[in-house]
Amino acid sequence: MSLNNAPVNNTSLTPLSSLGEFGLIRRLTRRARLANPSSCKGVGDDAAVLDYNNGKKILVSTDMLVEGIHFDLAYVPLKHLGYKAVAVNASDIHAMNGVPRQITLSIAVSSRFTVEALDELYDGVHLACERYDIDLVGGDTTTTRSGACISITIIGEVAGEEIVYRDTARANDIICVSGDLGAAYAGLQLLEREKRVLDGQTLARPAFEGHDYILERQLKPEARGDVTRQLRQASILPTAMIDISDGLSSELLHVCNGSRVGCRVYAEKIPVDPRAARFLEEINIDPLTAALSGGEDYELLFTIPLAAREAIAALPGITMIGYITPPGDGCNIVARDGSLVEIKALGWTNFKSDD
Amino acid sequence: MSLNNAPVNNTSLTPLSSLGEFGLIRRLTRRARLANPSSCKGVGDDAAVLDYNNGKKILVSTDMLVEGIHFDLAYVPLKHLGYKAVAVNASDIHAMNGVPRQITLSIAVSSRFTVEALDELYDGVHLACERYDIDLVGGDTTTTRSGACISITIIGEVAGEEIVYRDTARANDIICVSGDLGAAYAGLQLLEREKRVLDGQTLARPAFEGHDYILERQLKPEARGDVTRQLRQASILPTAMIDISDGLSSELLHVCNGSRVGCRVYAEKIPVDPRAARFLEEINIDPLTAALSGGEDYELLFTIPLAAREAIAALPGITMIGYITPPGDGCNIVARDGSLVEIKALGWTNFKSDD
Repeated sequence: MSLNNAPVNNTSLTPLSSLGEFGLIRRLTRRARLANPSSCKGVGDDAAVLDYNNGKKILVSTDMLVEGIHFDLAYVPLKHLGYKAVAVNASDIHAMNGVPRQITLSIAVSSRFTVEALDELYDGVHLACERYDIDLVGGDTTTTRSGACISITIIGEVAGEEIVYRDTARANDIICVSGDLGAAYAGLQLLEREKRVLDGQTLARPAFEGHDYILERQLKPEARGDVTRQLRQASILPTAMIDISDGLSSELLHVCNGSRVGCRVYAEKIPVDPRAARFLEEINIDPLTAALSGGEDYELLFTIPLAAREAIAALPGITMIGYITPPGDGCNIVARDGSLVEIKALGWTNFKSDD
Repeated sequence: MSLNNAPVNNTSLTPLSSLGEFGLIRRLTRRARLANPSSCKGVGDDAAVLDYNNGKKILVSTDMLVEGIHFDLAYVPLKHLGYKAVAVNASDIHAMNGVPRQITLSIAVSSRFTVEALDELYDGVHLACERYDIDLVGGDTTTTRSGACISITIIGEVAGEEIVYRDTARANDIICVSGDLGAAYAGLQLLEREKRVLDGQTLARPAFEGHDYILERQLKPEARGDVTRQLRQASILPTAMIDISDGLSSELLHVCNGSRVGCRVYAEKIPVDPRAARFLEEINIDPLTAALSGGEDYELLFTIPLAAREAIAALPGITMIGYITPPGDGCNIVARDGSLVEIKALGWTNFKSDD
């Protein structure tokens, strides 16, 4: 994995100014092909044209990624950034039980970016689009005075009766999560540690050996469309669903507050991969805290009726971590010693006072 | 018109950090109501839910506005910025002959912005949404280290047989424009002149008297849905259409190159408002140059069959400026002295070499 492909001064590279805006758009989108029958017209006119005249509902979601806030080009390869930008948007569509179909991608970058740097970013975007069967149908390309900003809007579809909202959990539902939690946060800690180590020491090599899993979870998260497909095949319709972008605590509160219910989640049931746990313990971070508050796992948190318990138990990669309670009971974690700890909003927030 | 409402240090204002991300989103979107039947679910879940199961095609367009590139908060009031961000996106949907229905709005701002500043921005967004019957259905709100970035994605609908692309003009079609051109550029020149005059002179007052029209054309452009409605009522279906965001020259080239045709446009026919012409001449800019290359007019450029000539002539506010020619003839302007001038891409471009 290259960790040093941020834009650099290099005379073999092409300044953005050499292509012009339209030339740049043509270059960046030349590989965008329309695979979905609902994509009538993609990049190249005032708007993309979609056709969903088939009884399906349309889902729309959007995310903005800002340099220095959501990504650090000192250690995030641009290709990974492009891939992740698509994946995290697709995750929002899956969290509604939908299937992602189209994205628009807008980028604003300063002139220190070269055409090759944007090519790399788009390589990642196209790779994710191919993997997830998503069409890139439009976007905008512009400059900033400094820094970079990426905005993706994703459009998906879902049969009306299959939409799953986040605010429809009911008492006694079982709470489930896909995959494992905390590893993306562990990967971020590793990258930031190595960035500090390397600061000013160009000859040092980052100590990433043996940490492939947590690095991949941070740099190349996957949208869990496989999980919603699995649920559909098993005829399980979740009662509520959300993706875990800000940490389990924050998402549990969204589900419970929105649904006007409480919850009881067992600390010992929360899935943390041993490779993440080992690294987190090495740097004195409680793996449970990372799972609850770390964020960026992009796993799915969902609730199912009690009756679906056995069907869920038969599915690989899904863990039952607790159950929904009546509203008066509050949102609690049952610690390993049996004590109840109230869940507070510990999720990642953009607007910290020290910003 | 207040020209000095960029974020300032003022203890009566609320830092963004005081609300938290979710509190801020709630505050900024509390006035977003869903008026369109196709808007099933707006802000508040992983994705908005739309339902267009009525034989219509869906249009999607997106634009990114960056501080210091697309707007200067020294003279653009935030409310106007919000209004304009919606209007320019709606313009893209009208340029496909569609009706705008929903937007998502993502913003990234530094901590020098206050909650009140964002309220102002959203005031303009909501005002435009009300004026154009558009629903705000989602978005993202985040921080930057410096500067501000706004991304809007707009979704609209159109009956499949009424979609008008930009690359379908045919030889002998008549070329029309709505409204007048060059005034937005004149307004920008006025604002930049006064910014230079005022630089460091806080007691001076900007000399904006008598320039309301060009200022409004720059600061508060309108999407021309009224024009497409007018055409529909007159049963005129344009053969090609585009909105004039980068200047008439650039848009003519898009239409002609895309359609593989040429054009002949008469300089004396290009509509320039006398108030814009007067100011432009005062600052030694040729009004025709401003109309051809100025940009940001957000008028509609469209072609109609020769047979619709009389029907168009009966419509107010639409000017026939020339006609489409076979491809070999090139794209030309007939100057006032009768000479032919070839149209070159003079439109505004983001990636200038001196950036």
